[in-house]
Amino acid sequence: MSVTDASGVLPLRVPTATGGAADYGFERCEGGVCAARGMRATGVHSGFRDDPNRLDLAVVAADEACVVGATFTQNRFCAAPVQVSRERAASGIARAVVLNSGNANASTGQPGLEAARESAAILARELDCPEEQVLVGSTGVIGKQMPLDPYRTGVPAAVRLLDSTAQGAHLAARAVMTTDTVPKESSWKGAVALGDEAATVHVGGFVKGSGMISPNMATMLSVLATDAPLTHEAAQKALSDAVACSFNKVTVDSDTSTNDTCILFATGKAAPGVLVDVDSPAFPAIAAAVRAVCEDLARKIAADGEGATKLVTVDVLGAATDADADVVARSIANSPLVKTAICGHDANWGRIAAAAGKCGIEFDQYDVDIDFMGVPVLRAGLPLPMDEDKMLRLFDENDEVSIVVSLGVGTAHGRIWTCDLTHEYITINGDYRT
Amino acid sequence: MSVTDASGVLPLRVPTATGGAADYGFERCEGGVCAARGMRATGVHSGFRDDPNRLDLAVVAADEACVVGATFTQNRFCAAPVQVSRERAASGIARAVVLNSGNANASTGQPGLEAARESAAILARELDCPEEQVLVGSTGVIGKQMPLDPYRTGVPAAVRLLDSTAQGAHLAARAVMTTDTVPKESSWKGAVALGDEAATVHVGGFVKGSGMISPNMATMLSVLATDAPLTHEAAQKALSDAVACSFNKVTVDSDTSTNDTCILFATGKAAPGVLVDVDSPAFPAIAAAVRAVCEDLARKIAADGEGATKLVTVDVLGAATDADADVVARSIANSPLVKTAICGHDANWGRIAAAAGKCGIEFDQYDVDIDFMGVPVLRAGLPLPMDEDKMLRLFDENDEVSIVVSLGVGTAHGRIWTCDLTHEYITINGDYRT
Repeated sequence: MSVTDASGVLPLRVPTATGGAADYGFERCEGGVCAARGMRATGVHSGFRDDPNRLDLAVVAADEACVVGATFTQNRFCAAPVQVSRERAASGIARAVVLNSGNANASTGQPGLEAARESAAILARELDCPEEQVLVGSTGVIGKQMPLDPYRTGVPAAVRLLDSTAQGAHLAARAVMTTDTVPKESSWKGAVALGDEAATVHVGGFVKGSGMISPNMATMLSVLATDAPLTHEAAQKALSDAVACSFNKVTVDSDTSTNDTCILFATGKAAPGVLVDVDSPAFPAIAAAVRAVCEDLARKIAADGEGATKLVTVDVLGAATDADADVVARSIANSPLVKTAICGHDANWGRIAAAAGKCGIEFDQYDVDIDFMGVPVLRAGLPLPMDEDKMLRLFDENDEVSIVVSLGVGTAHGRIWTCDLTHEYITINGDYRT
Repeated sequence: MSVTDASGVLPLRVPTATGGAADYGFERCEGGVCAARGMRATGVHSGFRDDPNRLDLAVVAADEACVVGATFTQNRFCAAPVQVSRERAASGIARAVVLNSGNANASTGQPGLEAARESAAILARELDCPEEQVLVGSTGVIGKQMPLDPYRTGVPAAVRLLDSTAQGAHLAARAVMTTDTVPKESSWKGAVALGDEAATVHVGGFVKGSGMISPNMATMLSVLATDAPLTHEAAQKALSDAVACSFNKVTVDSDTSTNDTCILFATGKAAPGVLVDVDSPAFPAIAAAVRAVCEDLARKIAADGEGATKLVTVDVLGAATDADADVVARSIANSPLVKTAICGHDANWGRIAAAAGKCGIEFDQYDVDIDFMGVPVLRAGLPLPMDEDKMLRLFDENDEVSIVVSLGVGTAHGRIWTCDLTHEYITINGDYRT
C-alpha cells in the first residue's frame, strides 16, 4: 500500500484498534478447535454426500460436560438443528456437537426436529451422556428431509476416531465444508493470571461458509473452544461480543442463512478449580483471544466467498454514529456494482460514492474523501487525478483490497469485510440446470 | 401459468388493482412522449460518445412554456444536472429539457454546475425562451468534467430536427440509452370530461435505465408528457404517486443512481382554457394514465436489466403493513442467490424463504406459503412435491417469472419488479480491464 499518491495527498488514517489479543501477549498457535485442552474432534464420510472421498460428518466433543455459549441465525426461517441447539445451549452446559454437510434440515417441519433430536441422541449414546448435552448443526440443501442412517453409521465411527490433536480439528473443519474451497481454522494462545498463578490459555476454532453469508447475530457453522475456565455468562459474553465485531461484519452476498450457528466450548482445563466471570481481571484477555479467533475466521470467510478473487475491507470513518458507519460500509460492501468493478480491477470510486449516498445516511457529498487501496482518489467530493497503471499494479500485487470512505460528519468508524462478485459466483449459484 | 399443480393445491391469489387506466377507458397508443399534443422531440449524435453512429443528445420541448412536475434521486451524491433541474422544476413551469448520454456530470463540483447551466442556456437561446425554463438530464460516467462543445453543435442541430411525430419521440428515447439494449417508450390515450365536453387526453414518455437501478423517489432518466391541462400541483401529484408505485418498485442491482430524474410536461393542448387540479373530477383518470405509462416503462427497465434473461415480479401478500410487504419483496428481489437461481432455471423456493426471513420483518415460518410461476411450492412453511420437468418447461416457455409469497400475518400487499442475475451482468460491469 502506498503512503501518498502522485499528487502528494495524504491517505486517510483508519483508527487502529487497541485491546487486541496481541496487546495481551497472545499469539497464534497450532491446533484449531483442539488447541483447547480437553477437546477432541474428527470428521468422517458417512453418506450425507454421494462422493465417498468427501467428509460430511464432524463430531467435536469435550472430555466431559463443560460450559458452552452459542449464537444463532436471526432468520425467521430457521432450521431444525438451530431450534434444537438454541434451546439446549441456553442451559450453559454441553458435552459435544454433531455437524453435517449436504443437508440443512431446514423447512422440514416436525420430522426435521425429530431427526435433529435423534441425531443428538445417537451421539449421546456413544459418549454416554444425557442427550440434552449434545448440540446439532447442519448445512446444505434446504427442504430435504434429513436421513438418519448416516448418523447411525457415521457417529460411532467418528467417536472411535476422536482425536485431541490438530489433525482431528482439521478433519472436523473439512467435514463441514460446502462450497468452501479451503478449511478455515484459527487458534491463539497466551498466558493469563488465573487464580494464584499464570496459566496458558488456548482459544481455537473452525468455521465453514462461503455463500448465503451475511450473518446476523451469528454466522455459518462455527465451533470454537477454549480451555479457559469461563462461567456460562462469561463464555456467552465473550462469544456474543466477538461475533458482533467479526462474523456479523462479513457479507458475501447479503443473504443470511437459515442455519447460522456458532458455539464456544469452555473446558476449564487451563486452571482446574478456577472460575472466570465477566468481572474477573482475566476476562478481557480471554475475550480478546476469542475475538482474535473469530476475526481470523471471519476474514477467511470473506476471502473464500463464493467465486471471490479478492478480500475487500470497507472502512467508513467520520460517521455520526457506529450504526451509521455500519450502514454505509454495508451499502458499499453489498453493492453489485462496486463488487463487479473490483472483479474487473477497476478502482471505480464513482460506484463507491453512489453506494455510500444511496443508503439514507445524511452527509454532504462535498465533505466526502475516499481512498482505494491506500491511494487517495476523492477529496471533498471531487476526484483526484488517478494513475491507472499504478492502480492496476496494486490490483495485481494484492489479494486484499481496502476501501476507506470518510463522511466528514462525526468521529464514528465501522468496518465490513466482503469480496468481489465474479463470473464464478454466478456459475456456482446459477448454473444448476443451464 | 398453471391453475393448480399436480397435487391439486390452489395457487395464491394476488389482489388485482382497480382504478387502472383501462378502468377509465384508456388504451395504449402510438407516439411515445410526442403522443401528447404540443410536444416535439428528437435525438442526434453530438460527440459525447466517440461512435458517430450512436445518438447521444436528446431534446424534448413543448411548443410553449407549460406546466411541469418532476422527481429526482435521493442519493446524497447527486449530479449537477439534478441540482439545476430540481431548483428550476420547483417553479412548476418549463419549456424543454436537454439530455445526454456518455457523461453523468456527477462529482464534478462547481465546473459541473456551470456546464449544466450553460447547456441549458444554449438550448434556451435556440428556443428563444428564458434559460430557467430549460431542464437538464445526464447519464454516463461519473467524475468526468462535462464538455460543452457537443452542446454547441448538437443543440442547434437537434432544434432544427424537432419533430412532433412518433419518430421524434423514438430518436429521443434512443439518444439516452447507455447499457440499455432497447429504447423504452409507452403511450396511452383516453376520453376524459374536461370542462363541458369530452376531450381525448394522451400521456406518453420514455425512460432509459438498465444498471445502477434501484430508484428512490425517482428513476433513471425519464421524460413524460401529457396534453391534459394539469395544474402544477396536479402534475406533481400525478407524477409522484405514479413514480412511487412504478419506478420506485424496480430494482435491478439495488444501486441507486446519482442522476435519477423523471419529468412530466403537461401542455394542456387537450382542452385549452380548462384547468385540472387534484380535486377535479377528471384528475383520477389522468393520474391513472400517468401511472399506466410509468408502470409500462418500469417493467421495461426490469426486463432490460443488465444481462437479464427474465422479468421477475415479486408479490408479497399477507403482510402486516404495506411497508413490511415492500421490505420482504425487496429482500427477495435483491437476493443474489434468488436471482442467480432464476438465471439457472432453478425454482429454488429455499432461497426465497431465506431471503424473506432475513430482513427483520416478523412472521412465523409455519404460516408462509410460496408460489413459483403460478405453481404452489410451499404451504405452511413446508415444501410440496415439485414436478421438476414442469418447472423447467415453464422457465423455457415464459419470459416472465412470478414469485408470490404469503406471510400469513395481515392483509397488506406489495409488488417489486426485478430480473435475474447472470454472467452477462458480471461481463457488463466487471470486464473493463480483465
